[in-house]
Amino acid sequence: MSPHPLRTLIETCDAAISRRDVDALMAFYAEDAALVVKPDMVVRGIPAIRRAFTAISDYFDGQLEVTQGAMEVIEGADNALVIMETRLRYPGGEGWIDETRRATYVFRKEPGGQWRCTVDNSYGITLLGAQQPGDRPAID
Amino acid sequence: MSPHPLRTLIETCDAAISRRDVDALMAFYAEDAALVVKPDMVVRGIPAIRRAFTAISDYFDGQLEVTQGAMEVIEGADNALVIMETRLRYPGGEGWIDETRRATYVFRKEPGGQWRCTVDNSYGITLLGAQQPGDRPAID
Repeated sequence: MSPHPLRTLIETCDAAISRRDVDALMAFYAEDAALVVKPDMVVRGIPAIRRAFTAISDYFDGQLEVTQGAMEVIEGADNALVIMETRLRYPGGEGWIDETRRATYVFRKEPGGQWRCTVDNSYGITLLGAQQPGDRPAID
Repeated sequence: MSPHPLRTLIETCDAAISRRDVDALMAFYAEDAALVVKPDMVVRGIPAIRRAFTAISDYFDGQLEVTQGAMEVIEGADNALVIMETRLRYPGGEGWIDETRRATYVFRKEPGGQWRCTVDNSYGITLLGAQQPGDRPAID
């Protein structure tokens, strides 16, 4: 089975981030898209997203590498919710640091069939706070 | 500050589920929306979503109650990603069972300003599997 077109698109985006090609990356965002830069900071619109990615790259001295782990895509009504493991690798004080986030992304299918990102939230559900409630039911 | 319109909308939807008013509930879904009924089962389109909610209600003997906990809404390009605690309460063999899910929903703003759900995934990131990777970076 061939991979979902959004897996290929996200691989292309992550490769663009890793080689600091912000122009290539911006082609995949909707004009008024939102990017969660950090849990208390959301920016909107391609100019602001472009500045944020440039700042993120500078923060990691241009050495941030982004790759993909497990991914689920749920399409509905020309939207897609992508839930995936986003793997970050960057230099730390004592060697390379590997970080895995469980990200949530929203894409919209344009009339021509092209997918564009409308909401980029690499923090996933951690926006609700660090505490993870159990998924198992509790009987009272 | 007044609550986000989507908080009010989701409260209305959850109240409709709790009183088994599937007609009222369907008004808030896009025509081709997707509903994750369980992790390995996604249905699409209002007729299928209607049948799924009727079956879910029957499964809980019409006694499922749904309410809302913490909620974050990220709007971008006429989409909204909602990340929230969805609280379920239903009768179990030994009393009432309380379950909290960290859900992920996608909404689209229609030209008239009405929000409609395009992807309803009450399972959130648990679709990726039960194992929760640490959010803390590991140094190698």
